[in-house]
Amino acid sequence: MKASVLTVGDEILIGQIVDTNSARIAQWLGEQGLCVCEMRSTGDAQQAITAALDGLFASCDTVIITGGLGPTSDDITKHTLAAYFGASRMVLHEPTLKHLTELLGSRGIALGELNRSQALAPDGCEVLPNLAGTAPGLWLEKDGKLAVALPGVPSEMEYLMANEVAPRLKKRFNTGEIFHKNIITTGIPESTLAEAIAAWENDLPGYLRLAYLPSLSGVKLRLSCHTAAAHPNLASEVAERVRQLQTLIPSHIVGYDNDTLEGAVGRLLKVRGATLSTAESCTGGRLAAIVTAQPGASAYFKGGVVAYANNVKVKALGVLPDDIEKHGAVSQAVVEQMATGARQALQTDFAIATSGVAGPDGGTPQKPVGTVWVAVAAPKRVASYKLNLGGDREQTMQRASYIALNLLRLALIDDSCSS
Amino acid sequence: MKASVLTVGDEILIGQIVDTNSARIAQWLGEQGLCVCEMRSTGDAQQAITAALDGLFASCDTVIITGGLGPTSDDITKHTLAAYFGASRMVLHEPTLKHLTELLGSRGIALGELNRSQALAPDGCEVLPNLAGTAPGLWLEKDGKLAVALPGVPSEMEYLMANEVAPRLKKRFNTGEIFHKNIITTGIPESTLAEAIAAWENDLPGYLRLAYLPSLSGVKLRLSCHTAAAHPNLASEVAERVRQLQTLIPSHIVGYDNDTLEGAVGRLLKVRGATLSTAESCTGGRLAAIVTAQPGASAYFKGGVVAYANNVKVKALGVLPDDIEKHGAVSQAVVEQMATGARQALQTDFAIATSGVAGPDGGTPQKPVGTVWVAVAAPKRVASYKLNLGGDREQTMQRASYIALNLLRLALIDDSCSS
Repeated sequence: MKASVLTVGDEILIGQIVDTNSARIAQWLGEQGLCVCEMRSTGDAQQAITAALDGLFASCDTVIITGGLGPTSDDITKHTLAAYFGASRMVLHEPTLKHLTELLGSRGIALGELNRSQALAPDGCEVLPNLAGTAPGLWLEKDGKLAVALPGVPSEMEYLMANEVAPRLKKRFNTGEIFHKNIITTGIPESTLAEAIAAWENDLPGYLRLAYLPSLSGVKLRLSCHTAAAHPNLASEVAERVRQLQTLIPSHIVGYDNDTLEGAVGRLLKVRGATLSTAESCTGGRLAAIVTAQPGASAYFKGGVVAYANNVKVKALGVLPDDIEKHGAVSQAVVEQMATGARQALQTDFAIATSGVAGPDGGTPQKPVGTVWVAVAAPKRVASYKLNLGGDREQTMQRASYIALNLLRLALIDDSCSS
Repeated sequence: MKASVLTVGDEILIGQIVDTNSARIAQWLGEQGLCVCEMRSTGDAQQAITAALDGLFASCDTVIITGGLGPTSDDITKHTLAAYFGASRMVLHEPTLKHLTELLGSRGIALGELNRSQALAPDGCEVLPNLAGTAPGLWLEKDGKLAVALPGVPSEMEYLMANEVAPRLKKRFNTGEIFHKNIITTGIPESTLAEAIAAWENDLPGYLRLAYLPSLSGVKLRLSCHTAAAHPNLASEVAERVRQLQTLIPSHIVGYDNDTLEGAVGRLLKVRGATLSTAESCTGGRLAAIVTAQPGASAYFKGGVVAYANNVKVKALGVLPDDIEKHGAVSQAVVEQMATGARQALQTDFAIATSGVAGPDGGTPQKPVGTVWVAVAAPKRVASYKLNLGGDREQTMQRASYIALNLLRLALIDDSCSS
């Protein structure tokens, strides 16, 4: 079964916000066995929304829409859908009015006219109660066409998808499963990876499709099969292909499916009963943020020092002022002392440190923007690496954080440091 | 002049990556005076790409495309465009071959067959040299229709947009300016804001359009005028409207246009010659990451402590173990000691601290997931606030960070603490 996604909002078209809803909705739909064939974004204008709906319904019968359900004047999705589905009038949805009155009341706010309007819904549509916010979702069907409208606020969209939309989709579409197997790699660029596994890729059976999904943390390989039911041996076939891949790029495979680099590092630390700390200069907290993105990170992550100023490097991490003077803060000597200093100060088994020039200013001919030193301190040794990264300030910071984390991962799986 | 954006990739349609390119391209186009009327995402399939091009060219003559230009087998954009624009064959682009040979050579890699194929371009198209990567951009024109294809890797897309596409667009389209004025607010929910400024909004002249753009850091208000040239007094009219807004929501306006909360805090600290440190438990480095997202933050940000474990709170920040025992780590007493402890340990004028339950586990009836204490320590006082946040783990962490930063901003503009 095919579906499509439509996001509505002038803010998307002028590039002021990045549309993250479409990706999440596509994930949800995939889990329900619905395959997204197209995504569109359009502005807050009735004509544009109507034209997009016409186009999307021409190639599939289900459209999930987000945005434009809010209480303000630029929110016109609801009225556009009412007209599109031929609703004769808007009717008051009493449970929503009650929810709004209670929700606002609990915050000490009286129900205003704008919020009251959120309890109005096109006649004949099904109202999807939104306990995570104010605007309810709408489920509209006519002549075999289904439109589901959700608020644009991601947390409210998520709530409605999980609690109202997903179960209804499951009931309505009794579709076959789409099979996906992800292999999460890191530390190898896309084209190098492609050449390393070219023969393996060519040998894949025709019903398995391979995609390369690069991100700042690495390249995800995705094997897909859209006719899973037709291949009873699919699971064992895929398992064998993955085993082959493991022999081709053993050190680059971080995990599978929804695994992440930070999750893999967390598992390795937990298996050892080891603890971790961070010492960050140029990455400014991002390394700790990535580590703590993993739920349950407190089992192994004790904390970190963001040593942005040199005197913090000296005072909190015990870096020698002479070495900062002699080699500069972006140097092997300093980054190694930051790592060993964090291990000591935070009493952890392992520590990762970063020091670099994130830009846009601060570069020199010797240390241009993008120069980053990273270090990993293990119980019995410290190793450091110099990186030359491209990209903007934020990318350099993120990329350096992931590379440092991967170096810790490699140190953790390296036997020589397990002693 | 209108344009549209097409992103190509199965990884987008199954929701494995969030399409950030469309937003950046829309920003670029806006700066060249081109107004984006639609965005679409489609899969790596010739038929789908062709259908999307047909649809987009039906309503505008310019389409910017990203994705599917890489060297791997799932990258088919180039061949699809060749067929679409009627190129009779692919021709070798010598400068690209030279660039690829040199680029890979500098990394000690011999030019492989896959990368060599990236030097082939549809006959008759203009090749846009990509010094930031391997796949060049393509500029194809026929019968008044213009397609520009760029690599999907964001840094390469950015490079080509800045260096090759933008100057060509400027030359080709001699369009009028689109006027945008952003007013950046924080600390006030969208619907509350809308009611507070309803009369002001109703009084706006018809050629000024208002949009509400909510994000985790606050709501951006955007005033737009698509016919700027027709309104010679536009600048003074907008300035007057903004002045009126300042009197309606004075404490909520952080800045204008591309200002950010972290930028505003940075300016306030610089004006005072004051310094800042952070002490983070539940936000795990995100608060420091937001502060350091601002280029030049080293002028006022000295560093921070990510005190994830209680013994780090005690040892690095001087929190009293008795208070952790008595009140728990997520408490007013502890968060205030974290803030004052950071001020002292990192020798700064101000400090911000967070301690909370980010979830998904760790909640209790007394302190459910989403409970976060934040504190701001100023030279002569410390203030703390209890937050009850919704959303997932990452959202709770981000939202708490922005709220804490806004409380610092309010403390900085509050006369009572300037003494």
